[in-house]
Amino acid sequence: MTQNVYDNPDFFAGYSRLPRSVAGLDGAPEWPSLRALLPELTNCQIVDLGCGFGWFCRWAADHGAAGVLGIDVSERMLAQAAKMTSQAVIRFQRMDLATLSLPQASFDLAYSSLAFHYIPDLPSLMKTVAAAMKPGGHLVFSVEHPIFTASAQAGWITDEAGRRFWRVDSYQNQGPRRTNWLTEGVIKQHRTIGAYTEALLEAGLTVRRIVEWTPTEQQIAADPALAPERERPMFLLMAATK
Amino acid sequence: MTQNVYDNPDFFAGYSRLPRSVAGLDGAPEWPSLRALLPELTNCQIVDLGCGFGWFCRWAADHGAAGVLGIDVSERMLAQAAKMTSQAVIRFQRMDLATLSLPQASFDLAYSSLAFHYIPDLPSLMKTVAAAMKPGGHLVFSVEHPIFTASAQAGWITDEAGRRFWRVDSYQNQGPRRTNWLTEGVIKQHRTIGAYTEALLEAGLTVRRIVEWTPTEQQIAADPALAPERERPMFLLMAATK
Repeated sequence: MTQNVYDNPDFFAGYSRLPRSVAGLDGAPEWPSLRALLPELTNCQIVDLGCGFGWFCRWAADHGAAGVLGIDVSERMLAQAAKMTSQAVIRFQRMDLATLSLPQASFDLAYSSLAFHYIPDLPSLMKTVAAAMKPGGHLVFSVEHPIFTASAQAGWITDEAGRRFWRVDSYQNQGPRRTNWLTEGVIKQHRTIGAYTEALLEAGLTVRRIVEWTPTEQQIAADPALAPERERPMFLLMAATK
Repeated sequence: MTQNVYDNPDFFAGYSRLPRSVAGLDGAPEWPSLRALLPELTNCQIVDLGCGFGWFCRWAADHGAAGVLGIDVSERMLAQAAKMTSQAVIRFQRMDLATLSLPQASFDLAYSSLAFHYIPDLPSLMKTVAAAMKPGGHLVFSVEHPIFTASAQAGWITDEAGRRFWRVDSYQNQGPRRTNWLTEGVIKQHRTIGAYTEALLEAGLTVRRIVEWTPTEQQIAADPALAPERERPMFLLMAATK
């Protein structure tokens, strides 16, 4: 099964304090770009793969979704998510995306924010998701960008002239990366944009958009800490249809 | 018009000595991957955008193409290309890809090797190419990968532990990059994979493959100089259909 680091107390405590956990969607700088990839949600059946605290589930319910199924492997996150809503169209279910089972041709939108880079077997997950989408249905997701995940020494390096670069190596060496994000030994899966695209196409989906997320000038003006995001992409956003 | 560095005598002399100029397609390590994206060529009408010495044109003619139009901005390269073939199905024409004009719905395959990263206005070129493709026709091309073109200080950097990284900065700053490849002041256009994808989709094409080229283990065994290509991708290969 997929590593369930979100039920680790240290990780959970750290994650719960992130802006995107406290402020929800508006605490995630890539959210406006991800939202721009979404179809009209009115009367839609939606599945949120790796729903966490359920911020997107509640937003979708507020925007007219007829049904929202939030799936996560973390018991703690789902407990918190359940506490935060009483909307009847939302249902939460504990499931591991690595062994996901969904009803066939049932969803107008499959959505996932920053979850797929934890999944070792993406082609298999994409086939399951594609089968669960209605014909004409949409898949919209974000992951950590491969430039961000490639190096085991991911980070900045400064040359003798004081210029700062993002370190890239091992780009073609796809597979697990052990990082110390919020706690020690978090395992993420590094894969190329080519591999993400291939998984979508092999599942029979049509690629609609590929966005290598960058903050807008307004976002950088409001939060100068976002400026380094212009130097190398941290998030990859993709949209596909069945 | 696009910078025509290929008619610069120093550049031309240097370019003419590259393995891919001397040995043709087999001198280009990415060729087997590019070839794998091609449709069946028998009886096809083909346009090669940036044909250079015409190696692909001759290969396509040898593989059953009914007609091959090789287009390049370089007079010297076309003169050399014309000398190297007497195949009646091949025709060369001098044209700048920035002001390309082609007959409508005429080609089964539009092919381009390492030319599109010289073109400032890619969306416009993609619209022209898409209009020239027959319905169901294919576009297959290679460009320098954005990880390779991003930094004005593109190259390797070594940390205090002796580990070597590829330098990435300015990834989101799309536009011209001045490099000194074979001669001084060669202008290439840096754009993201997202931007290449967007240009294809906006031209009404369907993305079929995205390949971030990597050498095979056999290729590295035969030519150890290719090993660094595993650390960061140099070439981006894409296939689309109309």
